[in-house]
Amino acid sequence: MSTNTAADVIGVERAGDAASRYRQVRDFTESLCATLEVEDCVVQSMPDVSPTRWHLAHTTWFFETFLLRRFATGYKPYDSAYEVLFNSYYNTVGPQFPRAQRGLLSRPTVRQVHRYRQAVDEQTAALLRDPPGENAAEILRVLEIGLHHEQQHQELMLTDIKHVLSCNPLFPVFRSREAATTRGNGKPAPSPQRRPPGEISDWHSYEEGLFEFGHDGQGFAFDNEGPRHQQFLADFELADRLVTNGQYQAFVEDGGYRRPQLWLSAGWAQRQSESWESPLYWHRRDGQWLHFTLNGLEPIDADQPVCHVSYFEADAFARWAAARLPRELEWEHAADPGRIETGNFVESGALRPTAAGEEGGFTCPRQMFGDVWEWTASPYAAYPGYRPPVGALGEYNGKFMCNQYVLRGGSCATSRTHIRPTYRNFFPPDARWQFSGIRLARDLQLSS
Amino acid sequence: MSTNTAADVIGVERAGDAASRYRQVRDFTESLCATLEVEDCVVQSMPDVSPTRWHLAHTTWFFETFLLRRFATGYKPYDSAYEVLFNSYYNTVGPQFPRAQRGLLSRPTVRQVHRYRQAVDEQTAALLRDPPGENAAEILRVLEIGLHHEQQHQELMLTDIKHVLSCNPLFPVFRSREAATTRGNGKPAPSPQRRPPGEISDWHSYEEGLFEFGHDGQGFAFDNEGPRHQQFLADFELADRLVTNGQYQAFVEDGGYRRPQLWLSAGWAQRQSESWESPLYWHRRDGQWLHFTLNGLEPIDADQPVCHVSYFEADAFARWAAARLPRELEWEHAADPGRIETGNFVESGALRPTAAGEEGGFTCPRQMFGDVWEWTASPYAAYPGYRPPVGALGEYNGKFMCNQYVLRGGSCATSRTHIRPTYRNFFPPDARWQFSGIRLARDLQLSS
Amino acid sequence: MSTNTAADVIGVERAGDAASRYRQVRDFTESLCATLEVEDCVVQSMPDVSPTRWHLAHTTWFFETFLLRRFATGYKPYDSAYEVLFNSYYNTVGPQFPRAQRGLLSRPTVRQVHRYRQAVDEQTAALLRDPPGENAAEILRVLEIGLHHEQQHQELMLTDIKHVLSCNPLFPVFRSREAATTRGNGKPAPSPQRRPPGEISDWHSYEEGLFEFGHDGQGFAFDNEGPRHQQFLADFELADRLVTNGQYQAFVEDGGYRRPQLWLSAGWAQRQSESWESPLYWHRRDGQWLHFTLNGLEPIDADQPVCHVSYFEADAFARWAAARLPRELEWEHAADPGRIETGNFVESGALRPTAAGEEGGFTCPRQMFGDVWEWTASPYAAYPGYRPPVGALGEYNGKFMCNQYVLRGGSCATSRTHIRPTYRNFFPPDARWQFSGIRLARDLQLSS
Amino acid sequence: MSTNTAADVIGVERAGDAASRYRQVRDFTESLCATLEVEDCVVQSMPDVSPTRWHLAHTTWFFETFLLRRFATGYKPYDSAYEVLFNSYYNTVGPQFPRAQRGLLSRPTVRQVHRYRQAVDEQTAALLRDPPGENAAEILRVLEIGLHHEQQHQELMLTDIKHVLSCNPLFPVFRSREAATTRGNGKPAPSPQRRPPGEISDWHSYEEGLFEFGHDGQGFAFDNEGPRHQQFLADFELADRLVTNGQYQAFVEDGGYRRPQLWLSAGWAQRQSESWESPLYWHRRDGQWLHFTLNGLEPIDADQPVCHVSYFEADAFARWAAARLPRELEWEHAADPGRIETGNFVESGALRPTAAGEEGGFTCPRQMFGDVWEWTASPYAAYPGYRPPVGALGEYNGKFMCNQYVLRGGSCATSRTHIRPTYRNFFPPDARWQFSGIRLARDLQLSS
Repeated sequence: MSTNTAADVIGVERAGDAASRYRQVRDFTESLCATLEVEDCVVQSMPDVSPTRWHLAHTTWFFETFLLRRFATGYKPYDSAYEVLFNSYYNTVGPQFPRAQRGLLSRPTVRQVHRYRQAVDEQTAALLRDPPGENAAEILRVLEIGLHHEQQHQELMLTDIKHVLSCNPLFPVFRSREAATTRGNGKPAPSPQRRPPGEISDWHSYEEGLFEFGHDGQGFAFDNEGPRHQQFLADFELADRLVTNGQYQAFVEDGGYRRPQLWLSAGWAQRQSESWESPLYWHRRDGQWLHFTLNGLEPIDADQPVCHVSYFEADAFARWAAARLPRELEWEHAADPGRIETGNFVESGALRPTAAGEEGGFTCPRQMFGDVWEWTASPYAAYPGYRPPVGALGEYNGKFMCNQYVLRGGSCATSRTHIRPTYRNFFPPDARWQFSGIRLARDLQLSS
Repeated sequence: MSTNTAADVIGVERAGDAASRYRQVRDFTESLCATLEVEDCVVQSMPDVSPTRWHLAHTTWFFETFLLRRFATGYKPYDSAYEVLFNSYYNTVGPQFPRAQRGLLSRPTVRQVHRYRQAVDEQTAALLRDPPGENAAEILRVLEIGLHHEQQHQELMLTDIKHVLSCNPLFPVFRSREAATTRGNGKPAPSPQRRPPGEISDWHSYEEGLFEFGHDGQGFAFDNEGPRHQQFLADFELADRLVTNGQYQAFVEDGGYRRPQLWLSAGWAQRQSESWESPLYWHRRDGQWLHFTLNGLEPIDADQPVCHVSYFEADAFARWAAARLPRELEWEHAADPGRIETGNFVESGALRPTAAGEEGGFTCPRQMFGDVWEWTASPYAAYPGYRPPVGALGEYNGKFMCNQYVLRGGSCATSRTHIRPTYRNFFPPDARWQFSGIRLARDLQLSS
Repeated sequence: MSTNTAADVIGVERAGDAASRYRQVRDFTESLCATLEVEDCVVQSMPDVSPTRWHLAHTTWFFETFLLRRFATGYKPYDSAYEVLFNSYYNTVGPQFPRAQRGLLSRPTVRQVHRYRQAVDEQTAALLRDPPGENAAEILRVLEIGLHHEQQHQELMLTDIKHVLSCNPLFPVFRSREAATTRGNGKPAPSPQRRPPGEISDWHSYEEGLFEFGHDGQGFAFDNEGPRHQQFLADFELADRLVTNGQYQAFVEDGGYRRPQLWLSAGWAQRQSESWESPLYWHRRDGQWLHFTLNGLEPIDADQPVCHVSYFEADAFARWAAARLPRELEWEHAADPGRIETGNFVESGALRPTAAGEEGGFTCPRQMFGDVWEWTASPYAAYPGYRPPVGALGEYNGKFMCNQYVLRGGSCATSRTHIRPTYRNFFPPDARWQFSGIRLARDLQLSS
Repeated sequence: MSTNTAADVIGVERAGDAASRYRQVRDFTESLCATLEVEDCVVQSMPDVSPTRWHLAHTTWFFETFLLRRFATGYKPYDSAYEVLFNSYYNTVGPQFPRAQRGLLSRPTVRQVHRYRQAVDEQTAALLRDPPGENAAEILRVLEIGLHHEQQHQELMLTDIKHVLSCNPLFPVFRSREAATTRGNGKPAPSPQRRPPGEISDWHSYEEGLFEFGHDGQGFAFDNEGPRHQQFLADFELADRLVTNGQYQAFVEDGGYRRPQLWLSAGWAQRQSESWESPLYWHRRDGQWLHFTLNGLEPIDADQPVCHVSYFEADAFARWAAARLPRELEWEHAADPGRIETGNFVESGALRPTAAGEEGGFTCPRQMFGDVWEWTASPYAAYPGYRPPVGALGEYNGKFMCNQYVLRGGSCATSRTHIRPTYRNFFPPDARWQFSGIRLARDLQLSS
């Protein structure tokens, strides 16, 4: 007779780790609400944005649906209505409350959602303490997906609440700059180094060849990062730094938003219909450019990376700068995972991209990780051999492979423990409310 | 030398009355929020609906703008941003935050809005205690407008929150039925009397003649109720009772929503584009009709007046019933102000229309006041000689005289002290979220 | 045995008259296409506009459906598909090809439509030569409606083609001015008399009283013109002339399109969303105002009546001029049918409103008939006792009594034989593509 | 002194060839209008569709703008208004009449456009007879682009007029089937071979490797086909035949349009909002599937390739069939240019895809060229090293590289002389009005 326990199968240590990591991620989610009023948690400022309360509930729904309902013996659903209310897009699970109407819901209240979180957390902790042996591995696998899923929503909570607050002419402060500089790792956010604005950065060059890309299956990765596969790259160069506010301002002042020749046809149509004149959150006041940040409304800093630009704007800027955006595999080829450690992620507490440091001698371009998601020229598509997982979690990534572009490297709102060189984020080319920015690339022959 | 004080001019008593009435109306507004969660107060479920918080602030803005800023010596505006945020549509006052975006605002918070109310209330009380003599009469005039304005918003708070809660599949209860029946005057809401559904009511007939209409200037009235003027009415009849749910259900079941011949052309287009199949808030479940009420989701009561129908539906129903809607002057001609006292208004606490009583012998049709606003066949237009007042308050009524229809009599959400026989409410013909219902009329020759 | 023939019943003469009048009206329709290219007849420039070809076919469908199918013995429908294609809005008759898609149809061709006209004309002529006795009166009644219906479409053909041509940057000429001035009755179009622009006209005053209104049933009238009924009018005044381009230009230059206080709330919203800055068809070029006419693009003439304004603009202009628009019964009260003869109708060939003559001594204001349809302040509603006819023709007028305003008097595109003092035209308040203009009114007390 | 003539530079023969080819292509354009009524040439049935007349004029504008204005000495523009009216999207050339409003233009007439064509043709012929020596090569280069451009519009003329006629409930026939089968090369269109419907075709397999792709610069190609570059392909298989109507019908009947799991998220949203239930032009009548073709409305033929499906439908079908769409480079790798000769192109006169023949023994899959454009899984993006040409013609391709998918192989509406293995057509994933169909692919490991 088998007396295998979950601990036998997956190791006591690993199960304990999982519980602790679960606690940590869940706590961080709630810490993001520390400065929010109840009112802030209700508003949906556009269809792409979800109310904070919805994020709090949906991430909990995820664990309830894919973990507790499947694996916790005798689990009794917390509230059958939540099954629909907080299902995002899983048709396999069942119907969904319409995304664009999430802001119409005033109930369950924030307090009720917190109680929901607590209840699910308790059950999950119990499950992790004593996972049924035959499912232990699957439980850990789903748990891990759930935690990465929650980290994605942590970032969305920040970008969504930024958008919500930005709609208010009072420009409420999410977190004061003082608080921001003394949070996280205790270090103040890096203070910007002055560089002449408008200067395009140095370049790193790479030689052509047949290389391997995608995740190798060691450790966690989303399905869309694999399978590992070969691809050929031609020679290319990558800018040493992200494009700065100062450089982008030069583009604006050179009529960048008035010259259709610089834009993709669809981009120009969008710019026209939305009357874009600058990145999202920039405001022109008395001849000066301000931008709305999570610290409130502030003058732009010329040395900080430009942020909240769409693919269309990134692409137009690159054309203006006689360069192009990197392809995602070029970016992946150049990315050194050893540099993740130094990136400006959510843990720094800055909640904004910061200027590149001056320290030199790296073989890898600066700012590859953190600060801003970098738009690539690559439409989001399946890697050769890609096959979505069977079951509801197969709806996680594959079905969105259309009319989106890949972004790489994470942002100042991403968790450091969430990012990988193979990580593929994706948004439609007109999306601007993420912390998205620009790194330039070019074909090698150009620079000779 | 003149030593006239305000008290001299308007009488101590009247100033004291004003202060007391101010307190009463303002308190009632807040009492309407008693059961609301903070979250409920933020949501805007459609452009016509304003968040509760906005109503709380806007009615306060009204007193601040038209009373304190004009008449309180040395008054310092509470917050200059509020001037724009809570201006509804007064172009003369200045710019307005866009109406359809009121639900994007999470700040000021509900608590801050309550503090705003308190501050303005204190200043208003002070002003009323000692009004500058030369402005005393004007202050009282504006105060009265402000109080009637606030009563209008009290009704909107109820209809708006009903719409907000109705969008939630949880169908939250605004006020439990038990609470509802023991509120207000302490009397339980009238229990419905059974009548055979489908039966069209008795008729009251009126003879032709030249009559006077409109407000005569004695006591308060809105500008659009005057001037008093003559008009000729042909013979007509008015139904003794409001159309009931039971009668309306017969219309529904007779294909009322499938027969374009019964509808105005614009009404049919609306019915098609919105897929109307019943009044707003009706739900078909397991072969039974339920409706969402402020007491939650309940089976419809066949004897209660049908409610939440548009002009288009009222008009189609009337055509189906071989009758028509009354003209507003016909209604006014028949209305006996002495019956206001017995109407089902917000003070009853029922928050829903109730079935007509059986007591008889009245010369005036039943249910003329309270229960539901009665759609009339009259487009909302200026009376002969009408001229909007000079200044910002001239924007109150006149500029909306286009593509709206007049409703008469007040509803279960109206204050009894707010209504008059000459009172003209108005909404576009597709509006359904008000407590609006149907009384039939017909030309006299028909009944012979 | 009865040997009654149609001629016996209705009189040979009257039947002959009918045939001749039929021929005349039908011919005039075709004469309006004389200068059109086939291509012109296909385009639908907005949902309100129908292609010329569609007008040609629909007016024919009317006679086929309501006359031939009902009364011509053994009549075989010309083409069963036409029943749907050319049904405008008669739900009683059957389904309709969607109005907004009429411009998608390239077949039947213009030539085929002309053949359709010819075939129906022949059958109609035959029917009129020998109408079945028992139906003779009804045939004449329907024929008369059909002819008035066709005259309405003649006017629409002109306003619609004007809109179509106006969308073309080549500004094609419908009819050259030379042709225009030598058409019709052979007289040249009246040459404008110079008057100082900006001067508001003299006034005619009318005393209060109880008067009769609406059509008395003698001769043809549409159902909506009756029944004849009493109504009380207060004292009022009516301007002696239509508002001119010069006067309207003064309004424009005084910021009329920039001052929300002058506008109805819905009007201002429309002006904003459509960016109105002047009447439809006005173009500002090199500091001069031109307008597109059926004679091509020309400088505006300050003395000619302003045209192609919406109700919203007419109403705003009136407010700016410290006046108001007339109510429809005021207009009817003042209108002298004896002046129809001198009006500028389509028969004059001018195809544009012309300046008022200087001849004096009339008791009735000038330009009451012809030139431009005059917006009244009256929402289009049923007269007391109005009841739409039974059957399909009951859909002619009644179902449009919602969100429209009454216009009176006919225009330069109306047939003289089509107009009456009781004639009620109606359009939504934002409609501008009709020949619609402004006459001012005011309450009497104002002028004292 | 130089006496070089164009003939010296480019060779008399080549210049003569060019003139003859010009004549041939231009004539073919006009031959496509042979059965059209003037009315057909005016209609724009959706924004993507252009009126026939516009195609006739725009292709002429192309030669006038890029050839005559630049190279014909003393050339006087035909009509300055045409510069704007018939500019499609070349911002470098100047402003454009809005695309979605092309159907509002009734002038210039079809006849005038033909005169425009004739005038430009004469001038072009003259220029080609005696091209200025220094520009001769450039003239031939632009001429070649212009002719390929016109061939593209020939195909659009067919797909656009098909859409226009399809909107008409009369379902007009563009060309009778009899005419279709005896046109072109004189051979009747291939008669379909019967195969069991529902059977998925045989597969051709290809081994992984590093291959070259893109055009090598020998002969004409569009800029987007280059530069020639290396890319690595993993093992894959390609279906021997196109997906047939019969197979697609099995998908429909298996609930293909009701199962969101089969669809991309954006595809499902589109299917929902447009209520797709079958390919464009399919109609269900009395339990049978018909489709609208250029020969009129007909029953579908189970053996013919399915057509008029969007990328979304192609992708969903592939998922249902446990396969995927080919990547464009896989397709290019498998395509044998020697098979172009046997493809079903516009020259066959069939104007519809035809069933695959049964003859065997080919190393290349059947139907790779002609019949239908084959949707690939590849988003339309720049090849490594791609750079749009300088000048207005640089707007030809590059600026559309966003949110579109590549299609390969040409269709029954494409000219045989227009296609190449490297040819990249592109349309948004929801486009259905092109002759677009499906070939399946799969990863090799699957089939083992």
